[in-house]
Amino acid sequence: MKITRNINNPLITPKDVKPSKKDFKVIGTFNAGVAKVNQKFLLLIRVAEKYHTNDPEIVGVPMYSEIDDKIIIKKFNRKDKTIDFTDPRFVKTKEQLYLTSLSHFRLATSTDGVHFEIDDKPFMIASTYYEAYGIEDPRITYIDDYYYINYSAISMSGVVTCLARTKDFKEVERLGIIFLQDNKDVAIFPEKINNKYYALNRPVSAYFNKPEMWIAASNDLISYHDHKLLASLRPNHFDNARIGASTPPFKTKIGWIEFYHGASFEDKYCVGVMVLDLNDPSKILYRSEEPLIEPSASYEQKGFMANVLFPCGQVIENDMIYLYYGNSDENICLITFSLNELLTMIKLELNQNE
Amino acid sequence: MKITRNINNPLITPKDVKPSKKDFKVIGTFNAGVAKVNQKFLLLIRVAEKYHTNDPEIVGVPMYSEIDDKIIIKKFNRKDKTIDFTDPRFVKTKEQLYLTSLSHFRLATSTDGVHFEIDDKPFMIASTYYEAYGIEDPRITYIDDYYYINYSAISMSGVVTCLARTKDFKEVERLGIIFLQDNKDVAIFPEKINNKYYALNRPVSAYFNKPEMWIAASNDLISYHDHKLLASLRPNHFDNARIGASTPPFKTKIGWIEFYHGASFEDKYCVGVMVLDLNDPSKILYRSEEPLIEPSASYEQKGFMANVLFPCGQVIENDMIYLYYGNSDENICLITFSLNELLTMIKLELNQNE
Repeated sequence: MKITRNINNPLITPKDVKPSKKDFKVIGTFNAGVAKVNQKFLLLIRVAEKYHTNDPEIVGVPMYSEIDDKIIIKKFNRKDKTIDFTDPRFVKTKEQLYLTSLSHFRLATSTDGVHFEIDDKPFMIASTYYEAYGIEDPRITYIDDYYYINYSAISMSGVVTCLARTKDFKEVERLGIIFLQDNKDVAIFPEKINNKYYALNRPVSAYFNKPEMWIAASNDLISYHDHKLLASLRPNHFDNARIGASTPPFKTKIGWIEFYHGASFEDKYCVGVMVLDLNDPSKILYRSEEPLIEPSASYEQKGFMANVLFPCGQVIENDMIYLYYGNSDENICLITFSLNELLTMIKLELNQNE
Repeated sequence: MKITRNINNPLITPKDVKPSKKDFKVIGTFNAGVAKVNQKFLLLIRVAEKYHTNDPEIVGVPMYSEIDDKIIIKKFNRKDKTIDFTDPRFVKTKEQLYLTSLSHFRLATSTDGVHFEIDDKPFMIASTYYEAYGIEDPRITYIDDYYYINYSAISMSGVVTCLARTKDFKEVERLGIIFLQDNKDVAIFPEKINNKYYALNRPVSAYFNKPEMWIAASNDLISYHDHKLLASLRPNHFDNARIGASTPPFKTKIGWIEFYHGASFEDKYCVGVMVLDLNDPSKILYRSEEPLIEPSASYEQKGFMANVLFPCGQVIENDMIYLYYGNSDENICLITFSLNELLTMIKLELNQNE
């Protein structure tokens, strides 16, 4: 099966995006939600920013403050020996863990799916207690005239998944927390199945560290029930350490197709494929033995988190799948491939295993 | 305010309970759900058992096996150097964490609330994948002719909260997972408030270790939404390290009364009191500065986990509150005190703070 990395990859990099504040520096533009809106390709980009200062003694933590109802900079002195600055992503005090970057969502649109116009201003920024450390990794599912956006909200309480919706990507309505901490990598199915909505999700236990894919049903997209473990880690596979849903599933003749991410103990993130039963999405009909793609291009093997491929959405135009992925937690890339070829490959593998 | 420790404390100890299997040894009888059923006091006791063998080289892990659909003993050789046996509560292999004890629920009934007849056989045992490592810490809430039992279910996937219900404590119907891992210390309110059910719960983040009390609403007791952080840890208080709901809240003139547990960094577990708004239980009207009780009796300061007081339910007879608590993760104890005195004390403290 032929998979084409776009010749313009990476399509979007931090230097293409204007910081949301004067003293901020964009360090990542990645893991975008994807939709087709008014004949245009739309990316809802996760933009990660750091506080930028010329004072080498200061580490600034950008975060939403509920009391001030705005983004503030919490400043720490690098010489303070009670604070752990070892990992540049974190500031660890005795009481609290802080993140040194803050993510928001930015819109970008394109007529060809390759060349994007990126908004100057954020579409959504952290603005509740539960989002104090930022909003991350949006996924978009179109249901009944609304684009539903689910995303990770990070705070001192942990990583929850929140839901929001918009009709036009101008106004957005927040619908609150749908999965409690720690739960991310939620992907909502685009229609009801036997009168229930479904969402893939990835709860993680502090005691038993098994980041695996679960599935839950819902009557209203807000409250979830019928929680089940869907897919486990696989020893000796590319997905032996961590897996989670990547893109919102889409319907085909052979089942719901889910592009998921699977990571190894070496922190290599690949993209795998699952086919879920059309009438009961808690049944896996197919799971790829090998990744659909793995980090191999030079731009995928370097960067902030090298060897991380992380798709959050696709657009399908006729037979062509446009799969957008974050690479190295830094840039946005595109691969394209034929839906028919994908289905043929899956059917062939399924027949071989019969 | 006068609090009376029952003179017969501890009321129930491991030697009072018959093992559920020949080669099992009861090591804990604690954290019981509490109800009044047909004029009798009913305790749904968490019974923890270990596999007992005379072979000093063998460590047996009792667990529910989905494949065998029964409780099995997974045996490990203590001489195996790839396995960590340091903490007697766990067996840690490279791939997996196991518990060396398995808990089930046993019924006990009493006419006076002090002298209990304990069933010879379990009422509920681990019997799903999500319960493979046992079921723990039941709480009972009576709603519309059903006794709803929520409990922690432990498995290699983590700690989830499940719900079951019974009309008679003979037959029991499992209703599945209501809160995903890790979430325990769930306490369900006994009636709808403004047309919604409510449950206290305690989600925990692997990254941001803040075991705090949350609250959620529900239309059906199964699916939850409107998730909110209710109560945080308090520096320089008895509840500075971990808090969670203990007993199902009950209604009084001044608000919903919740007896909760608060632990310090020294792992001392005390019982605190909260009053929640009658019309909006996500509002805290009162929270005790000092514990209602703390470990002070000799039997509370020793045992498997010394200095742990852990109530899971109360019965109120006229003005008398019977608060049953697990002590030291080993026995069941009882304190009694006057509801009126409690309300007077709370009102006094509230007036002083005005």
